[in-house]
Amino acid sequence: MVKALLSALLVLVAMSSTFGKYIPKTGKRIPQTLSRGWGDQLIWAQTYEEGLYWSRSRNKPLMVLFHLEDCPHSQALRKLFSEDNEIQRTLDEDFIVLNLVYETTDKHLSPDGQYVPRIIFVDPTMTVRADIVGRYSNRMYAYEPSDLKLLLGNMKKAKKLLKSEL
Amino acid sequence: MVKALLSALLVLVAMSSTFGKYIPKTGKRIPQTLSRGWGDQLIWAQTYEEGLYWSRSRNKPLMVLFHLEDCPHSQALRKLFSEDNEIQRTLDEDFIVLNLVYETTDKHLSPDGQYVPRIIFVDPTMTVRADIVGRYSNRMYAYEPSDLKLLLGNMKKAKKLLKSEL
Repeated sequence: MVKALLSALLVLVAMSSTFGKYIPKTGKRIPQTLSRGWGDQLIWAQTYEEGLYWSRSRNKPLMVLFHLEDCPHSQALRKLFSEDNEIQRTLDEDFIVLNLVYETTDKHLSPDGQYVPRIIFVDPTMTVRADIVGRYSNRMYAYEPSDLKLLLGNMKKAKKLLKSEL
Repeated sequence: MVKALLSALLVLVAMSSTFGKYIPKTGKRIPQTLSRGWGDQLIWAQTYEEGLYWSRSRNKPLMVLFHLEDCPHSQALRKLFSEDNEIQRTLDEDFIVLNLVYETTDKHLSPDGQYVPRIIFVDPTMTVRADIVGRYSNRMYAYEPSDLKLLLGNMKKAKKLLKSEL
C-alpha cells in the first residue's frame, strides 16, 4: 500500500515537472551545449568579445577553435581532442576557450582564409598569435587528429605571454 | 549468480564510460547550454553573425536578447519567458533566437545604450527594428516580467517583415 502510494506520488511529481512545458512538434530536444562536443567540462566563452574580455581580465591566452558540425575533419579532431586529458586540463587551467561554428567579422582571425578545423591563439594583449601555426603551409592553422602533440606544444608557446613582465 | 555477474558487468560498463575522462579539481561540471535557461527546447544561434545568416537564409526575424546571469531583472524575466508556451512556440516556429551575456561590437544593437534585460528585433533584411519598443521611455528595449503580453505583440510586429513582398 505504501509502495503504491509512493509510486503514485512519483508519477505525479514526474507529471508536474513536465506539465505545461513547451515541447516542439518534432519531439523533445536535447539542450544545445556551448562545448559542442569539444570538452563538456570546460567553461566556454559564447562570443569572441566575451573571450577577449576574459582573456584580458584573467591574463590567460584565448584559444579560438573554428569547426563545423558536419565536417568529417572537424569530427575526427574533436573526438581525440575531447578525449585528451592533458589538452583538456591545460585548457581548463591555463586558457580561455571559444569554439565557433561561425566566422566573426574580425579578419585577424582568418590570417590565411576561412576553413575548418582552424585553431587561432590570441594573447591577453588582444594580439592574434599568427606565429603559432600547425604543419600545413597551405592552411597554417589547421590541425589533423595526428597533430595533437604539436597542438600541445603550441599551447605551451601561447602560454608564454607576449608581455609577461607587465 | 547471474545477478552478481550482471552487477559486476554494470559496474565495469559504468567505470569504462568515465575512466580517463577529464574532471576538474573542483568536481564535475554540468555542460553549459546555449539557452542559458531562456528555453531549452529552442535552437539558439551562438553568435550575432550566425543569427543574421539564419535570419536571412530562412527569412525569419531575429530576436536578440541581452541578459546577465546574476541580474535579478534578467532572472525574473527569464523565469516567466521560459515558462510561457505561446512565446516559446512562436519563437521556435517563426524566429531565429540569440541570447547574449556579452555586448557585440555592432552599435546598432544598443540604440539607447547597453543594459539588461534588453530585447532587439532584427529584420531578415538585416535592419535593426529600432521601432519595436517596450513601455519604458528611458530604456526603450527593456521588458519587465509583467510585459510578456506586450512582448508577444511586438513579436507579431516583427513577424510582419519589412519587405515581405520580395
